[in-house]
Amino acid sequence: MRLATIDNGTPDGRLVVIAPDGAHYAAAPVATMQQALEQWAEVEPALRAVTTFDQPLADVRLLAPLPRAWQWLDGSVYASHGALMDKVIGIDKAPVPWPLMYQGVSSKFYAPTEDVVMADEALGIDFEGEFGILTDTVPMGTGAADAPAHIKLVVQINDWSLRSLAGPEMKTGFGWVQAKPPCSMAPFAVTPDELGEAWADCQPNMHLTVHWNGAQFGKAHGKAMGHGFDALVAHAARTRELVAGTVIGSGTVSNENYREVGSSCIAERRGIEIVDSGAPVTEFMRYGDSVRMEAVTADGRTPFGAIDQQVVRP
Amino acid sequence: MRLATIDNGTPDGRLVVIAPDGAHYAAAPVATMQQALEQWAEVEPALRAVTTFDQPLADVRLLAPLPRAWQWLDGSVYASHGALMDKVIGIDKAPVPWPLMYQGVSSKFYAPTEDVVMADEALGIDFEGEFGILTDTVPMGTGAADAPAHIKLVVQINDWSLRSLAGPEMKTGFGWVQAKPPCSMAPFAVTPDELGEAWADCQPNMHLTVHWNGAQFGKAHGKAMGHGFDALVAHAARTRELVAGTVIGSGTVSNENYREVGSSCIAERRGIEIVDSGAPVTEFMRYGDSVRMEAVTADGRTPFGAIDQQVVRP
Repeated sequence: MRLATIDNGTPDGRLVVIAPDGAHYAAAPVATMQQALEQWAEVEPALRAVTTFDQPLADVRLLAPLPRAWQWLDGSVYASHGALMDKVIGIDKAPVPWPLMYQGVSSKFYAPTEDVVMADEALGIDFEGEFGILTDTVPMGTGAADAPAHIKLVVQINDWSLRSLAGPEMKTGFGWVQAKPPCSMAPFAVTPDELGEAWADCQPNMHLTVHWNGAQFGKAHGKAMGHGFDALVAHAARTRELVAGTVIGSGTVSNENYREVGSSCIAERRGIEIVDSGAPVTEFMRYGDSVRMEAVTADGRTPFGAIDQQVVRP
Repeated sequence: MRLATIDNGTPDGRLVVIAPDGAHYAAAPVATMQQALEQWAEVEPALRAVTTFDQPLADVRLLAPLPRAWQWLDGSVYASHGALMDKVIGIDKAPVPWPLMYQGVSSKFYAPTEDVVMADEALGIDFEGEFGILTDTVPMGTGAADAPAHIKLVVQINDWSLRSLAGPEMKTGFGWVQAKPPCSMAPFAVTPDELGEAWADCQPNMHLTVHWNGAQFGKAHGKAMGHGFDALVAHAARTRELVAGTVIGSGTVSNENYREVGSSCIAERRGIEIVDSGAPVTEFMRYGDSVRMEAVTADGRTPFGAIDQQVVRP
């Protein structure tokens, strides 16, 4: 089952169920994604019972599947990304056995094709292609074994980053505020069962293609997480109940063979350049630049649709 | 003007206006605090026009004035707190010219007298007495000069902390997730004009009394912020629009003469003990312990009411 949210002029939009053809939809029996996640056990059967899809998607504007959330927690569990980022930032931090995670702004997720307003071109504008999950209510203390039952939907995310602010904020130990403006989501949220073999061990078992200004920049594979989403949920829920509609991200998708598959963010390529030649060469994004991200399964499906956005001045 | 939220069984409660006597209320002309902050310009005159207060507060249960928020950003701008915490954590971080700030869990703020469920007594349960503000929508790029107009209400907060997790999380650079469970708020949110001389230079010009298990633990003065709330708003809004209902905190209230006035958190006292004798002596909170926090103005008013809570096991 795939769900989306159409723009009806309200902050939370209108929840719809997507047809198998990916081109039509039907109104969901509950108004918003947030409401669906709050009462998932009751709502899911009614959502799955929708089988008539007579509205063309071409006629509507899609928002993020969850246009705003009460909580956004982003992991960083692709080891090759972490190692390269430490080089870029010039930080030498001790490895930890738990999944790295920060709390980010959740009051807005950009729609898949919405222009992204960045405060200043000089701040090192970068994309970060990643996967994410949406939970129902997760009781405090839920362990990794019980966590998969709370992973209701899988999403695809662009975690926008401002690199010239990221290093200085990180060095304070307080995490990122200015360096992390709102993220974007691809249009469709997908149940794990719908992904089939493209979801394995609570990880996305598929590639994430990233195009910057039309040129392929990366095609890393998702199933290289050092901790699966089950561990991420358990980490987040150790000392707090997770509110229904919590979004948890994987962090930038990255593979050890990054020279072959490319990267899902510019900073990582700059890290490779530092390793190779001592200094970064690739510049960050400029106003007017575009980025397109689309996950592709082994059998050629694109379950989440595409993020395709342009960076614009305020 | 003082506002509060009464428990009506819904997550956002029912907004009320508090009588000058602090013992009665009237229903507000808008249902929730979140709605009021989203349309403050239109709603404020109607709120101020309420003059008949015939409902006794004793008959209702008060929630946090904003029981859940789309965004919670907590500063740390009392210099003596920062210096002592670095000693406690064993961190030697370079000073920065901007206000330190992290993003925390905003999906729940505990009611002023609600029991606080902590996952594990061994995690170093601590309180942090502080002040906070609630904003309307703040455009991205709003500077400190324009920020005061967006500070609609002042609140009093207990930022619950788990100290044994705080240091390790801080050292990753990602900030705190597990170390920062939900905060609590005192019952009344107060407009800056109502505070009068107890609000000066965008800082709380009053003491914060803290009692732990009935014994006074601290009475630090609020007007010692290294950056006022105007600077905190501007810092938060540099690269993002702040959603209406954003909560921004001051960080733990602390004064340079901490040996005379005491502390607003246990960790700080432990820092003083480390300075004085090389090792901490005071233990953290136990299940069943209580903490009471109440701001007191120079003329003896307690504008926010009191936080008075007990820590309990899950």
